[in-house]
Amino acid sequence: MNETPVETLREKANAEALARIVGAEPVLTGVAAAGDVVPGMTPTTILTSGAPLEWPEYTGGQRRAILYGAVYEGLAGTVEDAEAKLDRGEIQVRATQQHDCIGSVAGIYTASMPVFVVRDDAHGNVAFCNFYEGKSRFRLNYGSYDREVADGLRWLETTMAPVLAECLAAGPVPLKPLMARALRLGDELHSRNTAATLLLQRELTPRLFDLAVTAEWRTRVEEVMDFFQANDYAFLRLGMAAAKATADAAHGVEHSSLITGMAINCREFAIRVSGLGDEWFRGGHPELQGRFFDGFTEADAEWIGGESCVTETVGLGGMAQACAPSLMNYQGGSFEAMLANNEAMYSITLSEHPEYRIPAFDFRGTPVGIDLHAVVSTGRTPLIDGGLAGRSGGQIGAGVLRPRIDAFTAAAAAYAERHPASVVF
Amino acid sequence: MNETPVETLREKANAEALARIVGAEPVLTGVAAAGDVVPGMTPTTILTSGAPLEWPEYTGGQRRAILYGAVYEGLAGTVEDAEAKLDRGEIQVRATQQHDCIGSVAGIYTASMPVFVVRDDAHGNVAFCNFYEGKSRFRLNYGSYDREVADGLRWLETTMAPVLAECLAAGPVPLKPLMARALRLGDELHSRNTAATLLLQRELTPRLFDLAVTAEWRTRVEEVMDFFQANDYAFLRLGMAAAKATADAAHGVEHSSLITGMAINCREFAIRVSGLGDEWFRGGHPELQGRFFDGFTEADAEWIGGESCVTETVGLGGMAQACAPSLMNYQGGSFEAMLANNEAMYSITLSEHPEYRIPAFDFRGTPVGIDLHAVVSTGRTPLIDGGLAGRSGGQIGAGVLRPRIDAFTAAAAAYAERHPASVVF
Repeated sequence: MNETPVETLREKANAEALARIVGAEPVLTGVAAAGDVVPGMTPTTILTSGAPLEWPEYTGGQRRAILYGAVYEGLAGTVEDAEAKLDRGEIQVRATQQHDCIGSVAGIYTASMPVFVVRDDAHGNVAFCNFYEGKSRFRLNYGSYDREVADGLRWLETTMAPVLAECLAAGPVPLKPLMARALRLGDELHSRNTAATLLLQRELTPRLFDLAVTAEWRTRVEEVMDFFQANDYAFLRLGMAAAKATADAAHGVEHSSLITGMAINCREFAIRVSGLGDEWFRGGHPELQGRFFDGFTEADAEWIGGESCVTETVGLGGMAQACAPSLMNYQGGSFEAMLANNEAMYSITLSEHPEYRIPAFDFRGTPVGIDLHAVVSTGRTPLIDGGLAGRSGGQIGAGVLRPRIDAFTAAAAAYAERHPASVVF
Repeated sequence: MNETPVETLREKANAEALARIVGAEPVLTGVAAAGDVVPGMTPTTILTSGAPLEWPEYTGGQRRAILYGAVYEGLAGTVEDAEAKLDRGEIQVRATQQHDCIGSVAGIYTASMPVFVVRDDAHGNVAFCNFYEGKSRFRLNYGSYDREVADGLRWLETTMAPVLAECLAAGPVPLKPLMARALRLGDELHSRNTAATLLLQRELTPRLFDLAVTAEWRTRVEEVMDFFQANDYAFLRLGMAAAKATADAAHGVEHSSLITGMAINCREFAIRVSGLGDEWFRGGHPELQGRFFDGFTEADAEWIGGESCVTETVGLGGMAQACAPSLMNYQGGSFEAMLANNEAMYSITLSEHPEYRIPAFDFRGTPVGIDLHAVVSTGRTPLIDGGLAGRSGGQIGAGVLRPRIDAFTAAAAAYAERHPASVVF
């Protein structure tokens, strides 16, 4: 008779999870090699995007990207050698999120790759993301690998990482105010990061100055500045690490139906729910409305992984699309459609973000806290901005992804099973 | 019988003037003391905003600002002394635009003040604008003067100007691509310049780096970087100089009814028309819809001059308001109103800018080329963004200015008189 109805428990739990998402204070504290800081990362571990799969299940571009990662890391001399070693378990493939990491597209991490270390100062948890490779269409995270890709990755290790590590030795960089500001400057912080990159660069400039006084550092500092100058996307990985730290803070609240993760691998789209433990609920790949680079069509697209949609789980990306009308140059559509799509997201979220705000909605907060049951009851899935990978490697376009409902209904079924008193609709 | 009708002459002339406005290529070439580069500027000249007036006609805050300028320049020991010298003609007050300059609010220039030198590379003409004083509410251009204001102006002379001059010795900075880009980053380049300031700072950073290697420059470079960091408005004067160079390129096309200048002094709003020579056509002050800083109301506002509305004459500011939803935090209103106001401007302009584009209008070009006759026939005057000055000195708010029709009807009458065959409606 004194039992609390599950709806009440859920409401309380969602309020708690939501408070954690909007209250998170992600701060960039450092840069280090993944092998030195990522929990459970060994010299022979390779991380990749999406809900965990066994090695033999990885196919196509994502499988190739894993093999390329092994070659890049020097764990194997050739792709064939890498495949044999993975088959024998001498190299182990793991899901990024099993290690507090977050993956862009294929999301390949090896032990020597540098990562951003982002701590949620409000709740103490830490997340990691490796670095943006630059604007070439061909990048390891898009399943491409050659001399140039390897050289680019090596440059990140030997130049970008030490320069940023030195800069950060002077103190952490709070990311939330910077991200909130970038939304007022036309970013939505998933597919558009131009303003955030500018703001980060400006934030680091005095530190880069201090570093550049010694001849030892000067050339490297100049190269890093050139990289920022050339790469409007450079902030994305930092935004992803911030979003991952934020979403993780809200994960694990018993009874909460808040979605704390969305992830893609070569086989599935999957979600994770705050109150449903570490299980990923899996479904088919999203539908996509893309704008393809010249010479490519939807037929050339391939799913090779992707977790940048963590930004949508914290009220950014598709949840803030109305901040970024310029995005239509990249991914197509019209501003009217962007406004309508963004507006529709309020129907599946628990609240409006107190700090991430949308100028075009007269500074209304972004829709935040995607509620599993709201998705299932409306049939409306979260809008995701994203880059598109091609079968033959490389990025071939960008667009809007619409997850199918199946992963969500699977999660709702699990919720109902775990909490039998629940009447979710 | 073979005479060309005036309408045809006007159409041809307007096409030419418009081509000059949209084809201008403003480039920042240098920084120098006004006395060294501004044509006709003497050590005892003081420039101020608005259509020219005789010295005794200047009243209130604009008059005070002129006197303060004389004291700052060392032309007089006190305000009373300055007044006597102006009365005797020992100090001469002139209108900025008689000297290819453009004034922010009161727009005070003295000979030692540094100016940006902006050349229109397409047509060869040059324009000047002095520097932003920083974000204090109290600035000489808002009619304030004290020790702090004087120190700030001196710092611009002794630190900002030499540092920028050295940077620019490495080569000019093209402004049009930077300004076009800022429109995609949430600026409208009159009342919002945050992105343009960021982009300018990034553009200059490598040059600042080069300069900072010598101990002699290092401290000054750091101070300049701090100024940019603290002042999101820093680009405005550069944008005004670019707009002035652009508008000047379109001025003086016989038969053209294109408006090539709008300017405010303490007594009047005035316009200049491409085909009507150097005459300013004068009318009453604009109506204003303002958002006032705490503690102020419209009753505290005072007209003390202003020519930043040159940005509107080239397709920016109010003509690009839909680019800058964040502006409503500063000047009030709603995004819906901003869209509607901006949209309405297409009815009084000759064309759409090929490079200045509005993401929220699906990248439609900004309305550009304000046509005198379109203004008169629609009764719709150009929308102007602007800061608001207070009676007791200082900035007290910001808002949208709507010029009255009288200056425009006066100009239309002059046009009809000069071209009697003209049927303008």
